[in-house]
Amino acid sequence: MSSKNGIKQLFNPESIAVIGASHNPHKVGSIILKNLKEGGFTGNLYPINPDTSPILELKTYSSINRVRGTVDLAIISTPANTVPKILEDCGRSGVKAAVIISSGFKEIGEKGEKLEEELRKTIERHEITVVGPNCLGVYDVDSGIDSIFLPSYRMGRPKHGNISFISQSGAFGSALLDWSAEEGFGISKFVSYGNAIDVDEVALLEYLGNDKDTKVISMYLEGANRARDLIEVGKKVTQKKPVVCLKVGRTEAGVKAAASHTGSLAGSDEIYSAAFKQAGIIRAETIEEMFDYSRAFATQPQLKGKKIAIITDGGGFGVMAADSAEKHGLQLAELSKKTKKFLKKELVPYASLNNPIDLTGVANEEHYSAAIDACMADPKVDCVLVILLLQPPNVSSDVIETLIEINSQHRKPMLVCSAGGRYTKTHTDILEDSGIPVFPTPDRAAKAMATLYKYSKIKN
Amino acid sequence: MSSKNGIKQLFNPESIAVIGASHNPHKVGSIILKNLKEGGFTGNLYPINPDTSPILELKTYSSINRVRGTVDLAIISTPANTVPKILEDCGRSGVKAAVIISSGFKEIGEKGEKLEEELRKTIERHEITVVGPNCLGVYDVDSGIDSIFLPSYRMGRPKHGNISFISQSGAFGSALLDWSAEEGFGISKFVSYGNAIDVDEVALLEYLGNDKDTKVISMYLEGANRARDLIEVGKKVTQKKPVVCLKVGRTEAGVKAAASHTGSLAGSDEIYSAAFKQAGIIRAETIEEMFDYSRAFATQPQLKGKKIAIITDGGGFGVMAADSAEKHGLQLAELSKKTKKFLKKELVPYASLNNPIDLTGVANEEHYSAAIDACMADPKVDCVLVILLLQPPNVSSDVIETLIEINSQHRKPMLVCSAGGRYTKTHTDILEDSGIPVFPTPDRAAKAMATLYKYSKIKN
Repeated sequence: MSSKNGIKQLFNPESIAVIGASHNPHKVGSIILKNLKEGGFTGNLYPINPDTSPILELKTYSSINRVRGTVDLAIISTPANTVPKILEDCGRSGVKAAVIISSGFKEIGEKGEKLEEELRKTIERHEITVVGPNCLGVYDVDSGIDSIFLPSYRMGRPKHGNISFISQSGAFGSALLDWSAEEGFGISKFVSYGNAIDVDEVALLEYLGNDKDTKVISMYLEGANRARDLIEVGKKVTQKKPVVCLKVGRTEAGVKAAASHTGSLAGSDEIYSAAFKQAGIIRAETIEEMFDYSRAFATQPQLKGKKIAIITDGGGFGVMAADSAEKHGLQLAELSKKTKKFLKKELVPYASLNNPIDLTGVANEEHYSAAIDACMADPKVDCVLVILLLQPPNVSSDVIETLIEINSQHRKPMLVCSAGGRYTKTHTDILEDSGIPVFPTPDRAAKAMATLYKYSKIKN
Repeated sequence: MSSKNGIKQLFNPESIAVIGASHNPHKVGSIILKNLKEGGFTGNLYPINPDTSPILELKTYSSINRVRGTVDLAIISTPANTVPKILEDCGRSGVKAAVIISSGFKEIGEKGEKLEEELRKTIERHEITVVGPNCLGVYDVDSGIDSIFLPSYRMGRPKHGNISFISQSGAFGSALLDWSAEEGFGISKFVSYGNAIDVDEVALLEYLGNDKDTKVISMYLEGANRARDLIEVGKKVTQKKPVVCLKVGRTEAGVKAAASHTGSLAGSDEIYSAAFKQAGIIRAETIEEMFDYSRAFATQPQLKGKKIAIITDGGGFGVMAADSAEKHGLQLAELSKKTKKFLKKELVPYASLNNPIDLTGVANEEHYSAAIDACMADPKVDCVLVILLLQPPNVSSDVIETLIEINSQHRKPMLVCSAGGRYTKTHTDILEDSGIPVFPTPDRAAKAMATLYKYSKIKN
């Protein structure tokens, strides 16, 4: 199994060889070389190609053996049948880690399985750390590592943040990164590990558990080969930081589909649920939940109790939030007398001072300010869900600054739900950029809040 | 109870009096007058204001009595205490229908309840049809009726389509319209009925059940006062067209919140579920489901069997779709020998010909064309879910035209799932505009498809 030090080279190499970089700019290796050169990677780059005329103006080598100096990481995208020899050359040349993008291994059957067996021997012989084959590889926002061969006009690259993703599926991973880039969600590291010949989800989970730039780990899984290790490692990691897992292959049809996709023998879904529970891993049922929970964890302090206050300018949204909060294990806080007295003075006479606090459609930013501030300061309230509908005409844009300011003054979780079109989005983007996650529906916001509480119970 | 003819005047009046239109452009009545004048309404408009200098260049009348000729619809936004007299004047002048936007009625307690009692007497006396009070009123894309006092920069107006919405909550309704406008979902009619002094959800359901421009009815409900009527009317309407209902107030916390919002005595959630089932009304659990189901119904032919084919270029998304399809009552079709033989010839050797059909990351538009066409033509397949991830580099933009063309040649439901950022959205917007709904996650797409099947069983 790969050492921690080997995995470190995936994210922080000082030098990278791109084996399969080509003079044809459309080849996978060329796209990777270009992304590395023009992205944030500042170390040494060595294109490897039998034709040694420069590629992208970089000195090109006929093989890895010809490179003088250390190569920390090799990214390999040549045809499957050439990979065993190339990896062996890498091992002999002292390359510490490799990402094998190439497909055509065990996923295509017996012939590929044989090639994989050869790779396995090389890995043991040289103690080289390998991600793949048949994967997208690694994306690290901070170090600029980007082995993803998809052009950036088709798949956006997300900005810096503190969520790290582990994906068994490449296509799932690319959709996830593209989505994150579009929505402005920040990430730290991403790994698509494909056939997992060496580095698998357990090794990555352990590494990211100790990674100071990762605040929350989010996984997509079809099947785990080392279930017992997953539980043991999971137990340790989830005491340090939350782990969210979207495990698919839940029904008979899904299990069959997973077997044909990643060859995962998914096993009974109940067993996975039990294993996750034991490990303290939080299961996401859908892609939305995976994102929602990760974003809440990435930005919010620990939620210490289950008493939620809901503040809204739309009664119906308040009802939905209350339904979801209760359904998912939170309790609507009984506001303190002081809070109620204060709100009676500050809000319109027909505002509802029960929880949900309904500011009604006449709400303005002062009403929001008063209500949020009072709830944040109320010792009977553990967290605040703000429903901010911007269609009513009295809420001015200043409300955004108010929310950001109040949020910075308190150490209680605060999530926002806001639904609407362009005008709404323009405003909520600012909240997102300030570390206040915004959810499009009240049930998703309340469920994310409930998941913060779920994790606080796992941790204690 | 209001006559069908009265309700017709809400959507198709030839003349409208706006009572509360003012020389101050920020007043609710002024915004409404402006929206009517500048929107699609082509009939006669009568601003009513004690100061009879022209408003928005329209001849202004001191009271409804002064208007010569018939007034089909009055939209009233004056202070609550002035409304009983105004409505009485409307009744005497032969106005057929009124929308009372004003709040300050039973939702504020005893004093308002008294005012509402006066309105009720007028309604009986003159057989006038009334929507409201305390509501947003009516939006009809085709006739240009727009009583919504929210400025269009804050709340977009959706384009023409065949979904009609009924909302007990105004704020919910405005978020819903804004969202529809942003996402490009087309609607026919929208009514926010507020306190439901006269026109309620049952009356609207019955009317829209007979409305030829409405293909699907979507409702937001906190509580029904006429549960028995809802079931009876629902039974009839759902034999003609699908009805989707988001009923909130499901938990103890939600029931309490609903009581304080619309005064609805929500009653037990199980009773509602049973009533909906009896009526054939499809219950949506979330706002997303409400939209997803409505969009599928609005565009798709009836789904006659439960055999689904899933076509994907990302294996993981295929697994998720299979999970969701099975979970929600569909079955993965066993493809016919002819289809399999054809696909073996057309696709790459390592593509999975089981269902889900995995075109893999090398998929191009020809692979999609072959697979979709074969499934659409396969008698063992009732419907097709196409997962179209556009991050992989081989799928050209032509795939969009291919999908639209194949869809136009068959009478089987086809839904698309596509996830990603700007590049993806640019392409999927074209599908949406061509009547092929696109869903952001495989589980939502499969669930929407399963709901089509659910309705076909209700209807038969």
